[in-house]
Amino acid sequence: MQFVINRDRFVHSVQHVSKAVSSRTTIPILTGIKIVATKEGVTLTGSDSDISIESFIPTEENDKVLVEVLEEGSIVLQAKYFAEIVKKLPEGQIELSVQDQFATTIRSGSAVFNLNGLDPEEYPRLPQVEEHHVFRLPQDLLKNIIRQTGFAVSTQETRPVLTGVNLTVENEELICTATDSHRLAMRKAKIETNNTELHFENVVIPGKSLSELSKVLEETDQLIDVVVTESQVLFRLNNLLFFSRLLDGKYPVTKNMIPTHSKTEFKIKTKPFLQTLERALLLSREGKNNVINLKTLEEGEIEITSITPEIGKVTEKIKSSDLSGEDLRISFNGKNVIDALKVVDSEEIHIVFTGAMSPFVVRPTEHDLALHLFSPVRTY
Amino acid sequence: MQFVINRDRFVHSVQHVSKAVSSRTTIPILTGIKIVATKEGVTLTGSDSDISIESFIPTEENDKVLVEVLEEGSIVLQAKYFAEIVKKLPEGQIELSVQDQFATTIRSGSAVFNLNGLDPEEYPRLPQVEEHHVFRLPQDLLKNIIRQTGFAVSTQETRPVLTGVNLTVENEELICTATDSHRLAMRKAKIETNNTELHFENVVIPGKSLSELSKVLEETDQLIDVVVTESQVLFRLNNLLFFSRLLDGKYPVTKNMIPTHSKTEFKIKTKPFLQTLERALLLSREGKNNVINLKTLEEGEIEITSITPEIGKVTEKIKSSDLSGEDLRISFNGKNVIDALKVVDSEEIHIVFTGAMSPFVVRPTEHDLALHLFSPVRTY
Repeated sequence: MQFVINRDRFVHSVQHVSKAVSSRTTIPILTGIKIVATKEGVTLTGSDSDISIESFIPTEENDKVLVEVLEEGSIVLQAKYFAEIVKKLPEGQIELSVQDQFATTIRSGSAVFNLNGLDPEEYPRLPQVEEHHVFRLPQDLLKNIIRQTGFAVSTQETRPVLTGVNLTVENEELICTATDSHRLAMRKAKIETNNTELHFENVVIPGKSLSELSKVLEETDQLIDVVVTESQVLFRLNNLLFFSRLLDGKYPVTKNMIPTHSKTEFKIKTKPFLQTLERALLLSREGKNNVINLKTLEEGEIEITSITPEIGKVTEKIKSSDLSGEDLRISFNGKNVIDALKVVDSEEIHIVFTGAMSPFVVRPTEHDLALHLFSPVRTY
Repeated sequence: MQFVINRDRFVHSVQHVSKAVSSRTTIPILTGIKIVATKEGVTLTGSDSDISIESFIPTEENDKVLVEVLEEGSIVLQAKYFAEIVKKLPEGQIELSVQDQFATTIRSGSAVFNLNGLDPEEYPRLPQVEEHHVFRLPQDLLKNIIRQTGFAVSTQETRPVLTGVNLTVENEELICTATDSHRLAMRKAKIETNNTELHFENVVIPGKSLSELSKVLEETDQLIDVVVTESQVLFRLNNLLFFSRLLDGKYPVTKNMIPTHSKTEFKIKTKPFLQTLERALLLSREGKNNVINLKTLEEGEIEITSITPEIGKVTEKIKSSDLSGEDLRISFNGKNVIDALKVVDSEEIHIVFTGAMSPFVVRPTEHDLALHLFSPVRTY
């Protein structure tokens, strides 16, 4: 194998596929990045067997030569060293060549690296996905959906299926749901599909996969293909394939958890409310339960308090609008509500309570595509 | 005690004095920040008994009212909470008042924090320094000197005196020296003083103190006073006092360590040489000794190599100028040389070797105010 490649583009691709490489893998070959050169260009692959990322660099793009392949072939190089080396190479062009016994030479300017490569035949093949369930949505929208739901997945392995985000598609609408059983985040979005009958549920993508995917997604409305199979999901962008395994197990039916009645409700400006809660959180951390108390007062005022007995307490009053229903005192995990308010894309929210001991719902007032559900905390 | 204070200025001062507060202190009162209000303004103090920082906010500055003191007094508040609280307060003004039993109220807008304060009488007094040994230098120059020497202090407690930077003053010149016994960094600077006879040596300031001091220094040529006593040093800026204890023990005499003869020497451009070494370091880390090899070639070329047997090796040739003396092969700790080249403020350096097993010296070619000394590494 021998090729000369544009350094910046190579670095970019190596950084992408490196995101899938774990140094803690038990499969030695997976500590490497696979490099394949063909007449069409160079393909890089990284994988930790949960996530696999493949990035392709074509020989030409927009009339610019990116790669000149002098000899086809393949090699696997240690990701840890390889990624750092390409970043630090001095010139705009890199020459990579493989000799006998996987001995690999990387040249750029006057720098010459001789690396011991690994046998590319040992590298596992990427999953083959059948393209029955395919839909498309803009890249920036997907990035936003991940931001608005991914934070709510469970970090505990007691119920593994809750460490993922559940995807449901019906009536050309995607519904993403994440819950750790104390809070729930839901986000809907319109999708594009050739099959208007496309329908599936219980497709659970590990939260970790989505947070890695989010790092390679860009702020553009270019469409991304999502291909769903029995055990894998594939996100296909321009020259990039991102595979993730799906989580086994039955995701809980969350539809029925969302209360439809109201005992107390109000609207409030998102940002001032978030800042009030952040101040209250300063004195609610000691017991590690982040308890913040909310109380409705006269004339639409809301009182937020928290206390750490040894240190002190904080009290703040904030104006709501359209306050109606019964008087309310409720305590909740302030950190959970803050997490949600940080990702709400609406200047105002609508909060509906169903009693001091029952879940409450936060919705944006500007659209009905998102919902956050919280369990209260018993404080006695 | 009761005062109303400009929030931004208060936050700025609290952040400064917080740098001296350690959460791991064995003296409970030192987990707090002392606040004293007088007719002149508000003084904040933080200390971990090694470092003490005092910041003063005058009632007025440049015709702008900063503090309105309604009642004089003092209090100590838990630094951890207090610093976070003032940062997050909603309005431009903060009211702080102390009631009975050190109960303290902080108000800003609609936010009210009630904190349990500590007895200010328990707070230790700052050291009293006699101002016999005083000199002045620009703030930005001091910041630069710290950057150019502080990295070379020892991080090991086996010889505590080497964890500090040694200050010597003679003939209105300051000489700062740091060494961990494998490398040495020295920086000289002209100082201003009213006593042209000012002379001292063996004043050793802990490296940690200097790195904290560096964070409060700004990029301005405003002069800073340095007051040296038997056991303390005081840095006095506009409205800020920074005290540090000095390290006990005899600092080694480093003057005689610096070789005066030369067996091989050359000049080389700092940045390309630094980048070459950084590439070589990529393959010299495995053994944790960071060994890089240097070899002189024909026609002023220098060859830099490093090797990690399991991974591979790197070779790079780089042009030097004015190469003279014997042929040389030498190995050294590449990380140490890289640390020094990063702080050299000269486009070109002059390296003088005294043999493969003897120390070598790096000097800027543009001035003679700095010097770096390195021991070679035996590789056989």
